[in-house]
Amino acid sequence: MNVDAIQKSLREFAEERDWNRFHSPKNIATALAVEAAELLENFQWLTEEESRRLAERPEEFRAVREEIADVQIYLLRLADLLDIGLEAAVRDKLALNAAKYPVALAKGNALKYNRLCP
Amino acid sequence: MNVDAIQKSLREFAEERDWNRFHSPKNIATALAVEAAELLENFQWLTEEESRRLAERPEEFRAVREEIADVQIYLLRLADLLDIGLEAAVRDKLALNAAKYPVALAKGNALKYNRLCP
Amino acid sequence: MNVDAIQKSLREFAEERDWNRFHSPKNIATALAVEAAELLENFQWLTEEESRRLAERPEEFRAVREEIADVQIYLLRLADLLDIGLEAAVRDKLALNAAKYPVALAKGNALKYNRLCP
Amino acid sequence: MNVDAIQKSLREFAEERDWNRFHSPKNIATALAVEAAELLENFQWLTEEESRRLAERPEEFRAVREEIADVQIYLLRLADLLDIGLEAAVRDKLALNAAKYPVALAKGNALKYNRLCP
Repeated sequence: MNVDAIQKSLREFAEERDWNRFHSPKNIATALAVEAAELLENFQWLTEEESRRLAERPEEFRAVREEIADVQIYLLRLADLLDIGLEAAVRDKLALNAAKYPVALAKGNALKYNRLCP
Repeated sequence: MNVDAIQKSLREFAEERDWNRFHSPKNIATALAVEAAELLENFQWLTEEESRRLAERPEEFRAVREEIADVQIYLLRLADLLDIGLEAAVRDKLALNAAKYPVALAKGNALKYNRLCP
Repeated sequence: MNVDAIQKSLREFAEERDWNRFHSPKNIATALAVEAAELLENFQWLTEEESRRLAERPEEFRAVREEIADVQIYLLRLADLLDIGLEAAVRDKLALNAAKYPVALAKGNALKYNRLCP
Repeated sequence: MNVDAIQKSLREFAEERDWNRFHSPKNIATALAVEAAELLENFQWLTEEESRRLAERPEEFRAVREEIADVQIYLLRLADLLDIGLEAAVRDKLALNAAKYPVALAKGNALKYNRLCP
């Protein structure tokens, strides 16, 4: 994903519309949480099994694809506003997770996943 | 951002720990919304102005960087599980937004941003 | 539930600590959403069946009870700040729901619950 | 607020529509978080000051009143499903908060509210 190019076009999109005064990191973090909940809404009454076969429901699938894009857009915007490199932040967190959840422990404690997992 | 490479390592991370049974799209969408709220938590009592100067608070800044990574990780995982191309989804949504919020209308209605914006 | 008495004690709690400047409706609505996500976090990796038997997990049960209280507290505070009568708002919404989801339609369309339900 | 009476009517509402199979605590906690985000959505682009004067915007005010009711309804339902007394849970949490945030400390550390507050 070309993070720089998308962030640049988001920056221009906001500037052209005079929206920067609304785009404080606080407000964008709020919008991001709202979009994440709208994404979740599509799954709320489905069983886990139905969610694995979401592609069988074209209307929901399309809605989910759009909400995933909305979350990604606000995440790119927030990282840009705070000058946080997205890929480096992800790599650092993956290294942390690997140290925090060693394979042996994780496999041996699957029943305690709720407390163990990220 | 190398989406394929990160998704591959996330897939392997889950497989090695026998976590795929927990990773239904429904559960991952839930975890994503929870992480988005944890990200938001760092901003909840800040003013918008303080949020624009988050870099002055190193501890909060570091926490925000980690939460941004967590949201990105679950988003990559969810897109992978549903076989949704993340960058294409974003591009399609940006095209939709450009049509939905024409510059002229958006600038002329800044006061109604709450109803107008994405 | 004695709504007035609890709202009064919440009001005094905030005043004594000089917290009213943080308690804009926007901030309280944010804190409420964050608490609702923390409540949800306790369920995120449980199956639906396990969630029905939450009482068998005393530690999670206690955490859920506390988070439910946090959500209720912020909801009471928000309603107070906006001068919205909580019970009347609930009664009005229940009347709306009864009109929106007539028994015959709801039973006949159980498969479409995801689109039909509140 | 007559908690028992509302919970009874919610229980009957679900039974009449054959919705109990959807109403696992996990799903209700999800619906609650989604509604809390919808409530928050009404505030996301407002300034804190505008949110304090929400009554001046009748349309948003009505929407907020409805979303507050939705959150309350799911909270009552969840407490009922888990057999948690809502008022006792609130009272216990208020006692905890009073011990956790003594007036002297809270007033003396207003600048650190973000880390101090509930």
